[in-house]
Amino acid sequence: MPEILISEYLLRRLKQIGIDTIFGVPGDYELALLDQVEPQGLSWIGTPNELVGAYAADGYARIKGAGALVTTFGPGELSAICGIGGSYCENVPVVHIVGYPPNPLQKTGKILHHTIGDGSFDHYHKISAEISCATTVLTDPATSAAEIDRVLNAMLHYSKPIYIGISEDIVFSKVSDEYLSTPLIHTLAPSVPESEAVAVAEIIKALESATSPILMVDGGAAPPNWAKYVDPLVEALKIPFFVTTMGKGIANEGSPYYKGGWSGAGSWPTSVIPGVENADCILWLGNYPSDFNTGIFTGNTSGANIIDLQRFSVKVGTTEFDARINHVMPKLVEAFESHPPLAEYAVEAIPPITLTTPENIEHDWLWDRLSTFIRAGDLVITETGTAQAGILQTRFASGAHGWTQAIYGSIGYATAAAAGASIASKETNAHTRVVLITGEGSLQLTVQALSLLDRFGVPPVVLVLNNKGYTVERFFRGWTAGYNDVANWDYVGLAKAFAPETEVRGWKAATAAELEALFVDEAFNNAPCARVVDMVMGVDDGPTNLRTMFVAKAKKAGS
Amino acid sequence: MPEILISEYLLRRLKQIGIDTIFGVPGDYELALLDQVEPQGLSWIGTPNELVGAYAADGYARIKGAGALVTTFGPGELSAICGIGGSYCENVPVVHIVGYPPNPLQKTGKILHHTIGDGSFDHYHKISAEISCATTVLTDPATSAAEIDRVLNAMLHYSKPIYIGISEDIVFSKVSDEYLSTPLIHTLAPSVPESEAVAVAEIIKALESATSPILMVDGGAAPPNWAKYVDPLVEALKIPFFVTTMGKGIANEGSPYYKGGWSGAGSWPTSVIPGVENADCILWLGNYPSDFNTGIFTGNTSGANIIDLQRFSVKVGTTEFDARINHVMPKLVEAFESHPPLAEYAVEAIPPITLTTPENIEHDWLWDRLSTFIRAGDLVITETGTAQAGILQTRFASGAHGWTQAIYGSIGYATAAAAGASIASKETNAHTRVVLITGEGSLQLTVQALSLLDRFGVPPVVLVLNNKGYTVERFFRGWTAGYNDVANWDYVGLAKAFAPETEVRGWKAATAAELEALFVDEAFNNAPCARVVDMVMGVDDGPTNLRTMFVAKAKKAGS
Repeated sequence: MPEILISEYLLRRLKQIGIDTIFGVPGDYELALLDQVEPQGLSWIGTPNELVGAYAADGYARIKGAGALVTTFGPGELSAICGIGGSYCENVPVVHIVGYPPNPLQKTGKILHHTIGDGSFDHYHKISAEISCATTVLTDPATSAAEIDRVLNAMLHYSKPIYIGISEDIVFSKVSDEYLSTPLIHTLAPSVPESEAVAVAEIIKALESATSPILMVDGGAAPPNWAKYVDPLVEALKIPFFVTTMGKGIANEGSPYYKGGWSGAGSWPTSVIPGVENADCILWLGNYPSDFNTGIFTGNTSGANIIDLQRFSVKVGTTEFDARINHVMPKLVEAFESHPPLAEYAVEAIPPITLTTPENIEHDWLWDRLSTFIRAGDLVITETGTAQAGILQTRFASGAHGWTQAIYGSIGYATAAAAGASIASKETNAHTRVVLITGEGSLQLTVQALSLLDRFGVPPVVLVLNNKGYTVERFFRGWTAGYNDVANWDYVGLAKAFAPETEVRGWKAATAAELEALFVDEAFNNAPCARVVDMVMGVDDGPTNLRTMFVAKAKKAGS
Repeated sequence: MPEILISEYLLRRLKQIGIDTIFGVPGDYELALLDQVEPQGLSWIGTPNELVGAYAADGYARIKGAGALVTTFGPGELSAICGIGGSYCENVPVVHIVGYPPNPLQKTGKILHHTIGDGSFDHYHKISAEISCATTVLTDPATSAAEIDRVLNAMLHYSKPIYIGISEDIVFSKVSDEYLSTPLIHTLAPSVPESEAVAVAEIIKALESATSPILMVDGGAAPPNWAKYVDPLVEALKIPFFVTTMGKGIANEGSPYYKGGWSGAGSWPTSVIPGVENADCILWLGNYPSDFNTGIFTGNTSGANIIDLQRFSVKVGTTEFDARINHVMPKLVEAFESHPPLAEYAVEAIPPITLTTPENIEHDWLWDRLSTFIRAGDLVITETGTAQAGILQTRFASGAHGWTQAIYGSIGYATAAAAGASIASKETNAHTRVVLITGEGSLQLTVQALSLLDRFGVPPVVLVLNNKGYTVERFFRGWTAGYNDVANWDYVGLAKAFAPETEVRGWKAATAAELEALFVDEAFNNAPCARVVDMVMGVDDGPTNLRTMFVAKAKKAGS
């Protein structure tokens, strides 16, 4: 019964679930653990701060199935909390490991650095418990391996973050390596087979009896686990499909069945709105009816029989079944591959893009223009704000994927998540280029993440929507208010100063023609290094769908 | 009974307690409140992110007596939590105001952006409750004014942060302005007068009966409230005094009674250590015996009769009195101004500084050299790490003040706190220059705070200890470990790129001679703009007192 350090045990477990890189910021309470990272075959990427680390771990997890972050007790972990909250909200499995003061030292009653000075060591654990699906602070070597497995299994089950507190005395404790041979429960256990079979039959029946069925690709229910079934399902169903803001970037939009992005009143008025609102049956993958995901509640799908596939349930109309999206989707693919065609529901295609380069970089031109800039192999990470609305209008090439943090909506997320995702993309060969689209106000929160994005991972293209402030906030309130302005920074200068030893290319594009010249330049498109484009845009400009949404919202509130 | 908006009520209360500037990041849930900031005569300073805002509010509060931060529900407030935890730990009164989703909207059960998606709206409030002395989320207009007063009074009483959640519907509710005429309780209520008188008498008796009495200026017990009595007390007592790391920067070190910084084994060995350890009575202002404040528990003051003045208690030896430092200190000043001299306790002065400019910028030279660089009117903010240890060695000129976050020790704090402090210094004319001393690893966490520091407040000098990593962590573990390295950035380039419209001057000082040339240049010293010096320092170098501390700590652990 060979014995291994508990730190080794924990790291080997992370490796088992597909984590190859750990993000974080070192602190003295965690250094003994970090000593084991490389010996266990993992890479350590130190991040400029903990929030950047948390977002990077989230971006990494969305590609690799799980991510890990190490921070130190107190200031370190608290700085990451916002990022972990986002992972909780959007069902991203992230392990947050926190270096605790040694247990014997805690018992002395002395005031230790990083505490809040009151002699208590459990405030931070309580804080993380609010935004984690399971937590543990290891104090007993005898149960530490079991505790680690318990929380890791919870993370894999719920696809939500967990919290592990570990101190130096525990790190140096030992445990039998035999525990490692008990597999973690990677695969969501199937529900009762009879129930699942009934659910699948009911779904098929509902689709068969529909005269205008559609598929809606949404982002609830932890897409990393079922995204691979989406394109086969589209091919098998042969019915029109749409994507929500949260579901954007999962499906192949080059498919003839793709009919556009759905965002309530912010959707394309002549095809998407009637296409969705007149459907009598919607097969909905991970419905997540939040404000930002529904055009601020301006859509109306009440006329349809909704089949909602979720991580732990399937609902057909008002009937709920004990079944799970991960298991039901491949069964639906199989069933429809040999099924007579469903009712043909003709939904007009969104009009082909006809572009005339305007003088200024206007939103409506930009989002259409990106449809041909974005290419197969791209991973497109879009920030909350005007970009999140605009991207729904962009049509991704086959083989291009991406996401936006549509529900939690933490500005600053995208830049750091793109850094983590670019590293995961390199490890997996999943994508060859990362395209980050962010407003400059959002970029300011985590601008130091450019330092990661510039140095690791697949080469990034960073498009900065520089419109002198938080334009999406202006839509809410304070169109000309000073609080919606942000300071003017030199974004190209910053990107270069963050990576003086690395090649970083940068441009300021003041006109659409200047941006167009870059987009058609193959040297720009294929450069093996980071490219940053500071795009000067109008303070008052926004994507049409965003404007429409706000008009509809106001009308609804007034009615 | 004229009625005013509750937002106006809240902002006028902040104004009453001396807050003139509010920091924060706008978010749609809080914009209605922000609309009232300028009409109520307050300034709004938008910060690049919330953590920077929280640290800036802390720095501002340490000068002005209170600070305020506004963030938005969820991601916004969580990003600030680390900073609020530090204010809690170090007794800094900060109001954290959070914009909540409208109460009627919360009741619809719909999923709103910035939530964690589970329909609950109280996770974030529970999180802040762990690091606040009082919290409220306003839901009832009728009680909102009383709730605001309750938490503001708690903040003033405990000198700790509070949390106020306020939604748009509450912002637009009205309250009678008569409530505003009930004064908030700014002044800590006196304890039982008889008890206080006994305490003062006992303190005097203890000092009278001592043969080797000293004064220790420490930083517990919320120094903003009693700092003004320190110099008069020194003059009245005429006994040797020392300062701890947390107390550094409060007292006039130009006084003949100043005998140096006390940090256990890390103190000056031939005068400070015997001076403190042989004292038979220590009048200790706000004793805060944490690891980082005691040379990692390497000092020994057990031979002394300790008089510990705290915010809510006074202890003489083992006897505790119901008395308070704020009230006791002026009484002691008065008593000793006309008191026969106490026993003369000769403590050797720390040797005068004799400087020979070395080739490289070495720690021991630097901290001595700063003793003449720092001048009257300077506010010196020193970051956790090697700088925090080194600064104890520096002797501040009369009229120079400052602090370091000695207990909570959150790296990244100093840069943003300096920004807030520089703004408060300008408002109060308290200081004419801010000197920020930070390691580059720490600077990376909140580097965007340079954007604030460069544009508002009194002109700053930023000294960056660039030693390729977290050198203080190396002292703990991993002397050559990769996890203690940080990426190489161009700090001067960054400072300029953060403020392209403002004059920022920068230098890279590769040798001590280059730094010396700047320090003797009056144009550098008096420039009306931000100056950034990127100081190249040795990876392995650290202040002698830090080395000594770690040697003593290891010896103690081994014994």
